[in-house]
Amino acid sequence: MKKEVCSVAFLKAVFAEFLATLIFVFFGLGSALKWPSALPSILQISLAFGLAIGTMAQALGPVSGGHINPAITLALLLGNQISLLRAVFYVVAQLVGAIAGAGTLYWLAPLNARGNLAVNALNNNTTQGKAMVVELILTFQLGLCVFASTDSRRTSPVGSPALSIGLSVTLGHLVGVSSANNGAQEPGAQRPDHWPYLHQVFWVGPILGAVLAAILYFYLLFPHSLSLSERVAIIKGTYEPEEDWEEQREERKKTMELTAR
Amino acid sequence: MKKEVCSVAFLKAVFAEFLATLIFVFFGLGSALKWPSALPSILQISLAFGLAIGTMAQALGPVSGGHINPAITLALLLGNQISLLRAVFYVVAQLVGAIAGAGTLYWLAPLNARGNLAVNALNNNTTQGKAMVVELILTFQLGLCVFASTDSRRTSPVGSPALSIGLSVTLGHLVGVSSANNGAQEPGAQRPDHWPYLHQVFWVGPILGAVLAAILYFYLLFPHSLSLSERVAIIKGTYEPEEDWEEQREERKKTMELTAR
Amino acid sequence: MKKEVCSVAFLKAVFAEFLATLIFVFFGLGSALKWPSALPSILQISLAFGLAIGTMAQALGPVSGGHINPAITLALLLGNQISLLRAVFYVVAQLVGAIAGAGTLYWLAPLNARGNLAVNALNNNTTQGKAMVVELILTFQLGLCVFASTDSRRTSPVGSPALSIGLSVTLGHLVGVSSANNGAQEPGAQRPDHWPYLHQVFWVGPILGAVLAAILYFYLLFPHSLSLSERVAIIKGTYEPEEDWEEQREERKKTMELTAR
Amino acid sequence: MKKEVCSVAFLKAVFAEFLATLIFVFFGLGSALKWPSALPSILQISLAFGLAIGTMAQALGPVSGGHINPAITLALLLGNQISLLRAVFYVVAQLVGAIAGAGTLYWLAPLNARGNLAVNALNNNTTQGKAMVVELILTFQLGLCVFASTDSRRTSPVGSPALSIGLSVTLGHLVGVSSANNGAQEPGAQRPDHWPYLHQVFWVGPILGAVLAAILYFYLLFPHSLSLSERVAIIKGTYEPEEDWEEQREERKKTMELTAR
Repeated sequence: MKKEVCSVAFLKAVFAEFLATLIFVFFGLGSALKWPSALPSILQISLAFGLAIGTMAQALGPVSGGHINPAITLALLLGNQISLLRAVFYVVAQLVGAIAGAGTLYWLAPLNARGNLAVNALNNNTTQGKAMVVELILTFQLGLCVFASTDSRRTSPVGSPALSIGLSVTLGHLVGVSSANNGAQEPGAQRPDHWPYLHQVFWVGPILGAVLAAILYFYLLFPHSLSLSERVAIIKGTYEPEEDWEEQREERKKTMELTAR
Repeated sequence: MKKEVCSVAFLKAVFAEFLATLIFVFFGLGSALKWPSALPSILQISLAFGLAIGTMAQALGPVSGGHINPAITLALLLGNQISLLRAVFYVVAQLVGAIAGAGTLYWLAPLNARGNLAVNALNNNTTQGKAMVVELILTFQLGLCVFASTDSRRTSPVGSPALSIGLSVTLGHLVGVSSANNGAQEPGAQRPDHWPYLHQVFWVGPILGAVLAAILYFYLLFPHSLSLSERVAIIKGTYEPEEDWEEQREERKKTMELTAR
Repeated sequence: MKKEVCSVAFLKAVFAEFLATLIFVFFGLGSALKWPSALPSILQISLAFGLAIGTMAQALGPVSGGHINPAITLALLLGNQISLLRAVFYVVAQLVGAIAGAGTLYWLAPLNARGNLAVNALNNNTTQGKAMVVELILTFQLGLCVFASTDSRRTSPVGSPALSIGLSVTLGHLVGVSSANNGAQEPGAQRPDHWPYLHQVFWVGPILGAVLAAILYFYLLFPHSLSLSERVAIIKGTYEPEEDWEEQREERKKTMELTAR
Repeated sequence: MKKEVCSVAFLKAVFAEFLATLIFVFFGLGSALKWPSALPSILQISLAFGLAIGTMAQALGPVSGGHINPAITLALLLGNQISLLRAVFYVVAQLVGAIAGAGTLYWLAPLNARGNLAVNALNNNTTQGKAMVVELILTFQLGLCVFASTDSRRTSPVGSPALSIGLSVTLGHLVGVSSANNGAQEPGAQRPDHWPYLHQVFWVGPILGAVLAAILYFYLLFPHSLSLSERVAIIKGTYEPEEDWEEQREERKKTMELTAR
């Protein structure tokens, strides 16, 4: 476990998650600023969130896998794709990155456009429980899309994983509208009195959705043939130590080809 | 025949069609909810329908082929791509999924945005027959795009089949506007007095369009060299039994490569 | 020459050009209908034209090459990519297809939305000459994109040629706005008194643009190493006779691989 | 050094940068013209800028690498991807191309739509320094996306580099709004009295952003294993002389494959 943390590749990956989430939050919230001249449309905001995820997945995916979302990281931990320690470091990096992104935007945004920085709030006509289910469904479809687009076992044409994932985020925002589907956004910009209320919606919902997607994908639809000890080794980080994400990917591919032929 | 139905891969595929149609209907109709603050634009709704199909085709296509539409399933049956039993189970799964998706949205949508759940209706200035032809043309172009994008015999660069199919759905909605081009949407949300009227438009039109596309693609443009007994075996489900869709695909590819070399 | 025309593959290709142009014109003009409830935005119309080309290039490109535009066909003739006879048949098929597409739309469109069927007209504040140069530039960038996206000699990642070409059409429409950049659209919907005036703009402009792109691409940037007699044979249709477009493509690839190794 | 400049491939590449920047500026600014009938939306302008870059990268990328932006060219020089002489010629070609593109648009645009040709200006509520940081961030994410999408060492699926880069430009414009993120645009259309003021924002910002991205990508995340003398040779242009960009790319690939096996 210690060895993985000390490797340069691991540090690069954690930094990539920090940076990707910073930029994602900066551009996502930035597109939703309430400029006096022209309020942004829902389509415009949805595309900005999606293109921000797509661009960062394309640019930094080879370094860290491009999770950019604590719910996705937790789901990949559950799906035996990453180690516990990697998951913990990724989530911390994402949270710090989201705060940094929102802070940067707060500093740069003109006063008259700053507003409440597009902070998550709920439509008055919905309930906590229903809003949570909406968030669950939004992240469920995103999770399935992420897992299927980046699965190295896939044999059908995949096109651009980054673009597919980005457009899945856009889809979520086209329906989610008044709620954001990325758990890491809140800590940077939430008003304290709403915390317990909104955390249920914007933390529990996405995590449940991603976890359900992981169970469906990695245990029912496309189970890995791993022994229990191998699964434990993956969680411990001793299964594939000291390789960066890209190398692991390559190696898995080679192994598969050897098996397949 | 019985064997195919009992296989795990078959059950997974039927479930994938159910789930993909549920999510497609939820996001498609969900994007068209009439929020009091801002009515969604046609472009926004068209993109949501297209991205929902694209995301589900990317995520669940490897499990079931990603039909997500009874008209496409019937056309693929006619094109000797799937067995009769698979077609029947897929269509039932799609109908149940569509009802479930519309029901979920009905439950979750705030009262003031629920409206008639974006149910299909006709422009007052058109006739039944003309509306049916419009639906026919919309599904015809979608069918051609689906068949050409997922044909394992294709040698020219295909890019992302999921994105191509999704954007073809968007194209249909940009013109279809007041009509939906997915037959499976109606049963979940139709008012009974319109049924005989609208069914002709939204069931017969798409099915005719997809069937015409299948005849053109699989019998005229790119005919398969299959004997009559092979065709019957495919319909019976005895031609390629007990393999999941992905494996069948792979096998077909290998066979082709062997022939080609 | 006679042999090429008689081949089934040739007839299929000509039919594919007819059908693709029919559908392109139907969806392009159809997206621009002036519905009383909501006028379509320029972005919406531009996306519809682009997605219509992209979908048809994806679906029917393997049959005919997916020109869907007389200017592109003429440019590919000049670039020694197709025979003279193929070019003539393609252009005729495109013109008939465009008339059929516009006619179908005219029949199907409700009276109150029909208007002048989004017929090409000029902004009052521009001149014939300037409008022609705009059309020239629009088709020039489209031509370059088509040639580079479908060149079988390309070694850098190409992504989806169909999507690239479609988005290039969208780009042209975002700027072209009040003018359409497809020469084949006019004959189906032009008022006779404007013919001489508009033909200079919407025929000469695009053809000049595509021809300039072909000269730049096929003679300066990426010249083919063909002898004069080979070039003449291509124009005559005796160079690669009786093969469909897809097969030719494959064969060229194999030849290249043999040379390269 | 002299040899590289004299080669036909080098001249083609410089011309491609000129032409691509001309077309990019023409379509980008052209989409932002203030037509009296309908002001373009931010989404529409952002998509036009992005699709213009994407189309030119797809069409002319194989000739020159498709930089189309002085900041990207300088960053690639710093990242040891091109020679000093190539960088100088590219930047000059881009500047001349941008002036030509803006001039062409100025000549062609109707008087009532010409306005100030969508020239870069600052929101009144922001400061020089903050505007520069915004430009820095916009070009930083673009730089990362360009480097990761065109890196021949990449092993994970890349999809369409041209589309990824184009959508990254769209993302930047969705947030940048009142500022353009392409340094080469100004000289063609700037009012003299704003020069010192705006140059800090629209030149220093993008160059700093691209340079930071290059340091991160080429020195920290994915360093090349080149000796100092090799690096000097690349800058001098003696490392890979007299080959066009495409051939270099191929050769690098082959070398890598040899090493890898």
